[in-house]
Amino acid sequence: MADGTSAATKRQEGQVPDIVIGRLPLYLRTLILLEKEGKEVTSSQELGKQLGISSAQIRKDLSHFGEFGKQGTGYAVSYLKGQLKEILNLDEVWSVALIGFGDLGHALVHYNRFSERRFNIELIFDADPDKIGHVINGIIIQNAEKIEEIIKAKGIKIAILAVPIEVAQTVTDKLVNAGVRAILNYAPITLKNIPQDVKVQTIDPIAHLQKMTYYLG
Amino acid sequence: MADGTSAATKRQEGQVPDIVIGRLPLYLRTLILLEKEGKEVTSSQELGKQLGISSAQIRKDLSHFGEFGKQGTGYAVSYLKGQLKEILNLDEVWSVALIGFGDLGHALVHYNRFSERRFNIELIFDADPDKIGHVINGIIIQNAEKIEEIIKAKGIKIAILAVPIEVAQTVTDKLVNAGVRAILNYAPITLKNIPQDVKVQTIDPIAHLQKMTYYLG
Repeated sequence: MADGTSAATKRQEGQVPDIVIGRLPLYLRTLILLEKEGKEVTSSQELGKQLGISSAQIRKDLSHFGEFGKQGTGYAVSYLKGQLKEILNLDEVWSVALIGFGDLGHALVHYNRFSERRFNIELIFDADPDKIGHVINGIIIQNAEKIEEIIKAKGIKIAILAVPIEVAQTVTDKLVNAGVRAILNYAPITLKNIPQDVKVQTIDPIAHLQKMTYYLG
Repeated sequence: MADGTSAATKRQEGQVPDIVIGRLPLYLRTLILLEKEGKEVTSSQELGKQLGISSAQIRKDLSHFGEFGKQGTGYAVSYLKGQLKEILNLDEVWSVALIGFGDLGHALVHYNRFSERRFNIELIFDADPDKIGHVINGIIIQNAEKIEEIIKAKGIKIAILAVPIEVAQTVTDKLVNAGVRAILNYAPITLKNIPQDVKVQTIDPIAHLQKMTYYLG
Protein backbone atom coordinates (compact mmCIF):
# COMPACT_ATOMS: atom_id res chain seq x y z
CA MET A 1 0.00 0.00 0.00
CA ALA A 2 1.64 3.15 -1.21
CA ASP A 3 0.12 5.43 1.39
CA GLY A 4 1.20 3.34 4.33
CA THR A 5 -2.32 2.36 5.43
CA SER A 6 -2.98 -1.34 5.19
CA ALA A 7 -5.92 -2.70 3.26
CA ALA A 8 -7.13 -4.38 6.46
CA THR A 9 -7.23 -1.05 8.30
CA LYS A 10 -9.09 0.65 5.47
CA ARG A 11 -11.54 -2.22 5.43
CA GLN A 12 -12.36 -1.99 9.10
CA GLU A 13 -12.71 1.75 8.97
CA GLY A 14 -14.88 1.61 5.85
CA GLN A 15 -12.62 4.16 4.19
CA VAL A 16 -13.27 2.93 0.68
CA PRO A 17 -16.82 3.46 -0.58
CA ASP A 18 -18.80 0.28 -0.99
CA ILE A 19 -19.53 1.12 -4.61
CA VAL A 20 -15.80 1.16 -5.35
CA ILE A 21 -15.36 -2.27 -3.75
CA GLY A 22 -18.19 -3.50 -5.97
CA ARG A 23 -16.28 -2.53 -9.09
CA LEU A 24 -13.02 -4.28 -8.12
CA PRO A 25 -14.34 -7.78 -9.01
CA LEU A 26 -15.27 -6.44 -12.46
CA TYR A 27 -11.75 -5.12 -12.96
CA LEU A 28 -10.38 -8.47 -11.83
CA ARG A 29 -12.73 -10.36 -14.16
CA THR A 30 -11.60 -8.22 -17.08
CA LEU A 31 -7.90 -8.61 -16.23
CA ILE A 32 -8.31 -12.40 -16.16
CA LEU A 33 -9.91 -12.26 -19.62
CA LEU A 34 -7.16 -9.99 -20.96
CA GLU A 35 -4.52 -12.32 -19.55
CA LYS A 36 -6.19 -15.27 -21.27
CA GLU A 37 -6.01 -13.32 -24.53
CA GLY A 38 -2.26 -13.03 -23.98
CA LYS A 39 -2.18 -9.33 -23.04
CA GLU A 40 0.64 -8.43 -20.67
CA VAL A 41 0.00 -4.72 -20.33
CA THR A 42 -3.26 -2.79 -20.19
CA SER A 43 -4.42 0.74 -19.40
CA SER A 44 -7.29 2.40 -17.61
CA GLN A 45 -8.53 3.34 -21.11
CA GLU A 46 -8.60 -0.27 -22.25
CA LEU A 47 -10.20 -1.51 -19.02
CA GLY A 48 -12.74 1.28 -19.28
CA LYS A 49 -13.60 0.37 -22.85
CA GLN A 50 -14.08 -3.26 -21.88
CA LEU A 51 -16.30 -2.34 -18.97
CA GLY A 52 -18.15 0.74 -20.15
CA ILE A 53 -16.65 2.72 -17.25
CA SER A 54 -14.62 5.91 -17.66
CA SER A 55 -10.84 5.55 -17.42
CA ALA A 56 -10.81 8.37 -14.85
CA GLN A 57 -13.18 6.37 -12.65
CA ILE A 58 -10.96 3.32 -12.85
CA ARG A 59 -7.84 5.29 -11.96
CA LYS A 60 -9.65 6.92 -9.06
CA ASP A 61 -10.98 3.57 -7.79
CA LEU A 62 -7.54 1.96 -7.90
CA SER A 63 -5.87 4.98 -6.28
CA HIS A 64 -7.64 4.07 -3.02
CA PHE A 65 -5.25 1.14 -2.76
CA GLY A 66 -1.98 2.45 -4.08
CA GLU A 67 -0.10 3.04 -7.33
CA PHE A 68 -0.38 0.10 -9.69
CA GLY A 69 1.00 1.53 -12.91
CA LYS A 70 3.34 4.20 -14.15
CA GLN A 71 2.10 7.29 -15.94
CA GLY A 72 2.12 6.53 -19.65
CA THR A 73 3.09 2.87 -19.41
CA GLY A 74 -0.14 1.42 -18.10
CA TYR A 75 -0.67 -1.57 -15.83
CA ALA A 76 1.08 -4.93 -15.90
CA VAL A 77 -1.93 -7.26 -16.22
CA SER A 78 -0.57 -10.04 -14.07
CA TYR A 79 0.63 -7.70 -11.32
CA LEU A 80 -2.62 -5.73 -11.10
CA LYS A 81 -4.58 -9.00 -11.11
CA GLY A 82 -2.49 -10.25 -8.20
CA GLN A 83 -2.95 -7.02 -6.28
CA LEU A 84 -6.71 -7.04 -6.74
CA LYS A 85 -6.88 -10.66 -5.61
CA GLU A 86 -4.95 -9.73 -2.49
CA ILE A 87 -7.14 -6.70 -1.77
CA LEU A 88 -10.29 -8.81 -2.21
CA ASN A 89 -8.88 -11.61 -0.03
CA LEU A 90 -8.94 -14.11 -2.86
CA ASP A 91 -5.59 -15.75 -2.25
CA GLU A 92 -7.18 -18.22 0.09
CA VAL A 93 -9.75 -20.89 -0.67
CA TRP A 94 -13.15 -19.98 0.78
CA SER A 95 -15.44 -22.70 2.11
CA VAL A 96 -19.08 -22.07 1.32
CA ALA A 97 -22.30 -23.53 2.70
CA LEU A 98 -25.20 -23.87 0.28
CA ILE A 99 -28.61 -23.69 1.92
CA GLY A 100 -31.40 -25.11 -0.21
CA PHE A 101 -31.08 -27.81 -2.83
CA GLY A 102 -33.98 -27.10 -5.18
CA ASP A 103 -33.54 -26.37 -8.89
CA LEU A 104 -31.43 -23.32 -8.14
CA GLY A 105 -29.27 -25.07 -5.55
CA HIS A 106 -28.75 -27.86 -8.04
CA ALA A 107 -27.60 -25.40 -10.72
CA LEU A 108 -25.30 -23.66 -8.25
CA VAL A 109 -23.59 -26.88 -7.17
CA HIS A 110 -22.87 -27.63 -10.81
CA TYR A 111 -21.64 -24.11 -11.57
CA ASN A 112 -17.92 -24.74 -12.03
CA ARG A 113 -17.00 -21.11 -11.72
CA PHE A 114 -17.40 -21.20 -7.93
CA SER A 115 -14.55 -23.69 -7.51
CA GLU A 116 -12.54 -22.15 -10.35
CA ARG A 117 -12.58 -18.92 -8.36
CA ARG A 118 -11.82 -20.79 -5.12
CA PHE A 119 -15.28 -20.71 -3.60
CA ASN A 120 -15.70 -24.33 -2.60
CA ILE A 121 -19.19 -25.46 -1.72
CA GLU A 122 -18.41 -27.81 1.17
CA LEU A 123 -21.78 -28.12 2.86
CA ILE A 124 -25.29 -28.48 1.47
CA PHE A 125 -28.41 -28.23 3.61
CA ASP A 126 -32.03 -28.89 2.79
CA ALA A 127 -35.20 -29.37 4.84
CA ASP A 128 -36.69 -32.05 2.57
CA PRO A 129 -36.36 -35.55 4.14
CA ASP A 130 -36.25 -37.01 0.61
CA LYS A 131 -33.09 -35.04 -0.12
CA ILE A 132 -31.28 -35.29 3.23
CA GLY A 133 -28.56 -37.94 3.11
CA HIS A 134 -28.14 -37.90 -0.67
CA VAL A 135 -24.62 -37.30 -1.93
CA ILE A 136 -24.04 -34.57 -4.51
CA ASN A 137 -20.55 -34.01 -5.90
CA GLY A 138 -19.21 -35.89 -2.90
CA ILE A 139 -21.16 -33.75 -0.43
CA ILE A 140 -23.86 -35.23 1.81
CA ILE A 141 -27.02 -33.13 1.94
CA GLN A 142 -27.49 -32.34 5.62
CA ASN A 143 -30.63 -31.67 7.59
CA ALA A 144 -31.42 -27.94 7.64
CA GLU A 145 -32.05 -28.25 11.37
CA LYS A 146 -28.31 -28.67 11.83
CA ILE A 147 -27.31 -25.48 10.01
CA GLU A 148 -26.13 -23.61 13.10
CA GLU A 149 -24.35 -26.55 14.70
CA ILE A 150 -22.42 -27.69 11.63
CA ILE A 151 -21.53 -24.29 10.20
CA LYS A 152 -20.28 -23.13 13.59
CA ALA A 153 -18.22 -26.30 14.02
CA LYS A 154 -16.66 -25.92 10.57
CA GLY A 155 -16.09 -22.18 10.99
CA ILE A 156 -17.61 -21.41 7.61
CA LYS A 157 -17.97 -17.70 6.88
CA ILE A 158 -19.80 -17.67 3.54
CA ALA A 159 -23.27 -19.00 2.75
CA ILE A 160 -25.37 -19.10 -0.39
CA LEU A 161 -29.06 -18.85 0.39
CA ALA A 162 -31.23 -20.64 -2.17
CA VAL A 163 -34.32 -21.31 -0.06
CA PRO A 164 -37.98 -20.32 -0.54
CA ILE A 165 -38.83 -16.75 0.41
CA GLU A 166 -40.95 -17.91 3.38
CA VAL A 167 -37.98 -19.34 5.29
CA ALA A 168 -35.23 -16.99 4.07
CA GLN A 169 -35.26 -14.73 7.13
CA THR A 170 -35.35 -17.60 9.65
CA VAL A 171 -32.43 -19.31 7.93
CA THR A 172 -30.55 -16.00 7.77
CA ASP A 173 -30.91 -15.56 11.54
CA LYS A 174 -29.40 -19.02 12.00
CA LEU A 175 -26.54 -18.27 9.61
CA VAL A 176 -25.72 -15.06 11.46
CA ASN A 177 -25.79 -16.92 14.78
CA ALA A 178 -23.50 -19.55 13.34
CA GLY A 179 -20.89 -16.90 12.52
CA VAL A 180 -21.49 -16.52 8.78
CA ARG A 181 -20.28 -13.10 7.63
CA ALA A 182 -21.19 -13.09 3.94
CA ILE A 183 -24.53 -14.20 2.51
CA LEU A 184 -25.26 -14.46 -1.19
CA ASN A 185 -29.04 -14.32 -1.07
CA TYR A 186 -31.18 -15.64 -3.92
CA ALA A 187 -34.48 -15.20 -2.06
CA PRO A 188 -36.26 -12.13 -3.44
CA ILE A 189 -36.55 -10.28 -0.16
CA THR A 190 -34.44 -7.76 1.69
CA LEU A 191 -33.02 -9.66 4.66
CA LYS A 192 -33.26 -7.93 8.03
CA ASN A 193 -31.48 -7.91 11.38
CA ILE A 194 -28.10 -8.13 9.71
CA PRO A 195 -25.25 -7.08 12.03
CA GLN A 196 -22.81 -4.49 10.71
CA ASP A 197 -20.02 -6.99 10.23
CA VAL A 198 -22.18 -9.30 8.09
CA LYS A 199 -22.53 -8.55 4.39
CA VAL A 200 -25.47 -9.55 2.20
CA GLN A 201 -25.72 -9.45 -1.57
CA THR A 202 -29.11 -10.26 -3.05
CA ILE A 203 -29.57 -11.58 -6.56
CA ASP A 204 -33.12 -11.09 -7.83
CA PRO A 205 -33.47 -11.63 -11.58
CA ILE A 206 -37.02 -10.23 -11.55
CA ALA A 207 -35.78 -6.90 -10.20
CA HIS A 208 -33.20 -6.80 -13.01
CA LEU A 209 -35.85 -7.53 -15.63
CA GLN A 210 -38.21 -4.91 -14.19
CA LYS A 211 -35.47 -2.31 -14.26
CA MET A 212 -35.17 -2.93 -17.99
CA THR A 213 -38.88 -3.02 -18.85
CA TYR A 214 -39.04 0.57 -17.66
CA TYR A 215 -37.18 1.48 -20.83
CA LEU A 216 -39.38 -0.67 -23.06
CA GLY A 217 -42.35 1.68 -22.75
CA MET B 1 -48.17 12.23 -13.60
CA ALA B 2 -48.55 15.23 -11.37
CA ASP B 3 -46.07 17.42 -13.18
CA GLY B 4 -47.62 16.96 -16.61
CA THR B 5 -44.69 15.10 -18.17
CA SER B 6 -45.54 11.55 -19.20
CA ALA B 7 -43.50 8.61 -17.96
CA ALA B 8 -42.82 7.69 -21.59
CA THR B 9 -41.31 11.12 -22.31
CA LYS B 10 -39.13 10.99 -19.22
CA ARG B 11 -38.00 7.51 -20.22
CA GLN B 12 -36.92 8.55 -23.70
CA GLU B 13 -35.15 11.61 -22.43
CA GLY B 14 -33.45 9.69 -19.65
CA GLN B 15 -34.63 12.27 -17.13
CA VAL B 16 -34.73 9.86 -14.23
CA PRO B 17 -31.33 8.56 -13.10
CA ASP B 18 -30.78 4.90 -13.86
CA ILE B 19 -29.99 4.20 -10.20
CA VAL B 20 -33.46 5.46 -9.23
CA ILE B 21 -35.09 3.15 -11.78
CA GLY B 22 -33.10 0.28 -10.26
CA ARG B 23 -34.69 0.89 -6.87
CA LEU B 24 -38.29 0.93 -8.12
CA PRO B 25 -38.48 -2.89 -8.45
CA LEU B 26 -37.33 -3.16 -4.83
CA TYR B 27 -40.10 -0.80 -3.71
CA LEU B 28 -42.57 -2.84 -5.74
CA ARG B 29 -41.29 -6.12 -4.26
CA THR B 30 -41.69 -4.73 -0.77
CA LEU B 31 -45.18 -3.37 -1.44
CA ILE B 32 -46.28 -6.80 -2.72
CA LEU B 33 -44.97 -8.38 0.50
CA LEU B 34 -46.71 -5.76 2.66
CA GLU B 35 -49.94 -6.32 0.76
CA LYS B 36 -49.66 -10.07 1.37
CA GLU B 37 -49.28 -9.32 5.06
CA GLY B 38 -52.57 -7.43 4.89
CA LYS B 39 -51.17 -3.91 5.15
CA GLU B 40 -53.25 -1.30 3.36
CA VAL B 41 -51.21 1.79 4.16
CA THR B 42 -47.47 2.25 4.41
CA SER B 43 -44.98 5.09 4.69
CA SER B 44 -41.58 5.99 3.33
CA GLN B 45 -40.30 5.24 6.85
CA GLU B 46 -41.69 1.70 6.80
CA LEU B 47 -40.50 1.03 3.25
CA GLY B 48 -37.11 2.39 4.19
CA LYS B 49 -36.88 0.16 7.23
CA GLN B 50 -37.80 -2.88 5.17
CA LEU B 51 -35.21 -2.05 2.54
CA GLY B 52 -32.40 -0.45 4.49
CA ILE B 53 -32.83 2.76 2.46
CA SER B 54 -33.50 6.18 4.00
CA SER B 55 -37.09 7.40 3.91
CA ALA B 56 -35.86 10.66 2.34
CA GLN B 57 -34.31 8.70 -0.51
CA ILE B 58 -37.55 6.84 -1.14
CA ARG B 59 -39.61 10.04 -1.17
CA LYS B 60 -37.11 11.65 -3.53
CA ASP B 61 -37.12 8.64 -5.86
CA LEU B 62 -40.90 8.54 -6.03
CA SER B 63 -41.17 12.31 -6.51
CA HIS B 64 -39.70 11.86 -9.99
CA PHE B 65 -43.00 10.32 -10.99
CA GLY B 66 -45.61 12.31 -9.11
CA GLU B 67 -47.32 12.53 -5.74
CA PHE B 68 -48.34 9.13 -4.44
CA GLY B 69 -49.22 9.91 -0.87
CA LYS B 70 -50.45 12.76 1.26
CA GLN B 71 -48.26 14.39 3.87
CA GLY B 72 -48.81 12.59 7.13
CA THR B 73 -51.11 9.84 5.85
CA GLY B 74 -48.58 7.73 3.96
CA TYR B 75 -49.09 5.66 0.83
CA ALA B 76 -52.00 3.39 -0.03
CA VAL B 77 -50.14 0.11 -0.64
CA SER B 78 -52.34 -1.11 -3.48
CA TYR B 79 -52.36 2.25 -5.26
CA LEU B 80 -48.60 2.77 -5.06
CA LYS B 81 -48.07 -0.82 -6.20
CA GLY B 82 -50.29 -0.19 -9.22
CA GLN B 83 -48.49 3.04 -10.05
CA LEU B 84 -45.07 1.41 -9.87
CA LYS B 85 -46.25 -1.43 -12.09
CA GLU B 86 -47.46 1.09 -14.61
CA ILE B 87 -44.22 3.10 -14.50
CA LEU B 88 -42.18 -0.08 -14.95
CA ASN B 89 -44.43 -1.31 -17.79
CA LEU B 90 -45.50 -4.38 -15.89
CA ASP B 91 -49.17 -4.32 -16.77
CA GLU B 92 -48.51 -6.35 -19.87
CA VAL B 93 -47.21 -9.89 -20.13
CA TRP B 94 -43.66 -9.95 -21.45
CA SER B 95 -42.51 -12.77 -23.70
CA VAL B 96 -38.98 -13.88 -23.00
CA ALA B 97 -36.50 -15.96 -24.97
CA LEU B 98 -34.10 -18.13 -22.98
CA ILE B 99 -30.79 -18.78 -24.70
CA GLY B 100 -28.91 -21.76 -23.32
CA PHE B 101 -30.41 -24.81 -21.65
CA GLY B 102 -27.62 -26.05 -19.38
CA ASP B 103 -28.00 -26.40 -15.59
CA LEU B 104 -28.70 -22.70 -15.23
CA GLY B 105 -31.20 -22.58 -18.10
CA HIS B 106 -32.93 -25.58 -16.55
CA ALA B 107 -33.22 -23.84 -13.19
CA LEU B 108 -34.48 -20.65 -14.83
CA VAL B 109 -37.24 -22.47 -16.75
CA HIS B 110 -38.42 -23.97 -13.47
CA TYR B 111 -38.25 -20.68 -11.58
CA ASN B 112 -41.96 -19.93 -11.12
CA ARG B 113 -41.37 -16.34 -10.23
CA PHE B 114 -40.80 -15.39 -13.85
CA SER B 115 -44.34 -16.32 -14.87
CA GLU B 116 -45.79 -15.09 -11.54
CA ARG B 117 -44.36 -11.70 -12.44
CA ARG B 118 -45.58 -12.00 -16.02
CA PHE B 119 -42.29 -12.79 -17.67
CA ASN B 120 -43.22 -15.77 -19.79
CA ILE B 121 -40.39 -17.82 -21.18
CA GLU B 122 -41.83 -18.65 -24.61
CA LEU B 123 -38.74 -19.69 -26.51
CA ILE B 124 -35.74 -21.80 -25.55
CA PHE B 125 -32.63 -22.12 -27.71
CA ASP B 126 -29.60 -24.35 -27.38
CA ALA B 127 -26.74 -25.35 -29.67
CA ASP B 128 -26.55 -28.96 -28.46
CA PRO B 129 -28.11 -31.39 -31.02
CA ASP B 130 -28.99 -33.72 -28.12
CA LYS B 131 -31.19 -31.01 -26.61
CA ILE B 132 -32.74 -29.49 -29.74
CA GLY B 133 -36.27 -30.78 -30.28
CA HIS B 134 -36.88 -31.76 -26.66
CA VAL B 135 -39.98 -30.28 -25.05
CA ILE B 136 -39.62 -28.49 -21.70
CA ASN B 137 -42.71 -27.08 -19.98
CA GLY B 138 -44.47 -27.25 -23.33
CA ILE B 139 -41.69 -25.37 -25.13
CA ILE B 140 -39.64 -27.01 -27.90
CA ILE B 141 -35.91 -26.37 -27.56
CA GLN B 142 -34.94 -24.70 -30.83
CA ASN B 143 -31.67 -24.72 -32.70
CA ALA B 144 -29.49 -21.76 -31.63
CA GLU B 145 -28.79 -21.11 -35.30
CA LYS B 146 -32.35 -19.89 -35.64
CA ILE B 147 -32.19 -17.30 -32.85
CA GLU B 148 -32.34 -14.27 -35.13
CA GLU B 149 -35.00 -15.63 -37.44
CA ILE B 150 -37.42 -16.84 -34.77
CA ILE B 151 -37.02 -13.98 -32.29
CA LYS B 152 -37.50 -11.44 -35.06
CA ALA B 153 -40.60 -13.27 -36.33
CA LYS B 154 -42.09 -13.40 -32.83
CA GLY B 155 -41.17 -9.81 -32.04
CA ILE B 156 -39.69 -10.77 -28.67
CA LYS B 157 -37.96 -7.92 -26.84
CA ILE B 158 -36.48 -9.65 -23.78
CA ALA B 159 -33.84 -12.39 -23.68
CA ILE B 160 -32.15 -14.27 -20.86
CA LEU B 161 -28.62 -15.23 -21.77
CA ALA B 162 -27.47 -18.43 -20.05
CA VAL B 163 -24.75 -19.55 -22.45
CA PRO B 164 -21.04 -20.24 -21.94
CA ILE B 165 -18.82 -17.18 -21.78
CA GLU B 166 -17.14 -18.07 -25.09
CA VAL B 167 -20.28 -17.56 -27.15
CA ALA B 168 -22.00 -14.86 -25.09
CA GLN B 169 -20.90 -11.94 -27.28
CA THR B 170 -21.77 -13.69 -30.57
CA VAL B 171 -25.21 -14.59 -29.29
CA THR B 172 -25.68 -11.04 -27.99
CA ASP B 173 -24.94 -9.61 -31.44
CA LYS B 174 -27.63 -11.90 -32.85
CA LEU B 175 -30.14 -10.88 -30.18
CA VAL B 176 -29.53 -7.21 -30.88
CA ASN B 177 -29.96 -7.80 -34.61
CA ALA B 178 -33.19 -9.65 -33.90
CA GLY B 179 -34.62 -6.60 -32.14
CA VAL B 180 -34.16 -7.66 -28.51
CA ARG B 181 -34.03 -4.59 -26.28
CA ALA B 182 -33.41 -6.08 -22.83
CA ILE B 183 -30.86 -8.78 -22.04
CA LEU B 184 -30.52 -10.46 -18.66
CA ASN B 185 -26.97 -11.74 -18.97
CA TYR B 186 -25.69 -14.61 -16.82
CA ALA B 187 -22.37 -14.93 -18.66
CA PRO B 188 -19.64 -13.38 -16.51
CA ILE B 189 -18.44 -10.86 -19.07
CA THR B 190 -19.31 -7.29 -19.90
CA LEU B 191 -21.16 -7.45 -23.22
CA LYS B 192 -20.04 -4.99 -25.89
CA ASN B 193 -21.48 -3.25 -28.95
CA ILE B 194 -24.78 -2.65 -27.20
CA PRO B 195 -26.85 0.07 -28.90
CA GLN B 196 -28.16 2.86 -26.69
CA ASP B 197 -31.74 1.61 -26.83
CA VAL B 198 -30.78 -1.88 -25.65
CA LYS B 199 -30.39 -2.52 -21.92
CA VAL B 200 -28.23 -5.20 -20.35
CA GLN B 201 -28.20 -6.40 -16.76
CA THR B 202 -25.47 -8.86 -15.83
CA ILE B 203 -25.78 -11.30 -12.94
CA ASP B 204 -22.41 -12.64 -11.81
CA PRO B 205 -22.53 -14.41 -8.45
CA ILE B 206 -18.72 -14.55 -8.27
CA ALA B 207 -18.50 -10.76 -8.44
CA HIS B 208 -21.01 -10.55 -5.58
CA LEU B 209 -19.03 -13.02 -3.48
CA GLN B 210 -15.76 -11.22 -4.17
CA LYS B 211 -17.28 -7.94 -3.13
CA MET B 212 -18.05 -9.52 0.24
CA THR B 213 -14.71 -11.30 0.79
CA TYR B 214 -13.10 -7.85 0.77
CA TYR B 215 -14.67 -7.35 4.19
CA LEU B 216 -13.63 -10.77 5.48
CA GLY B 217 -9.96 -9.77 5.73
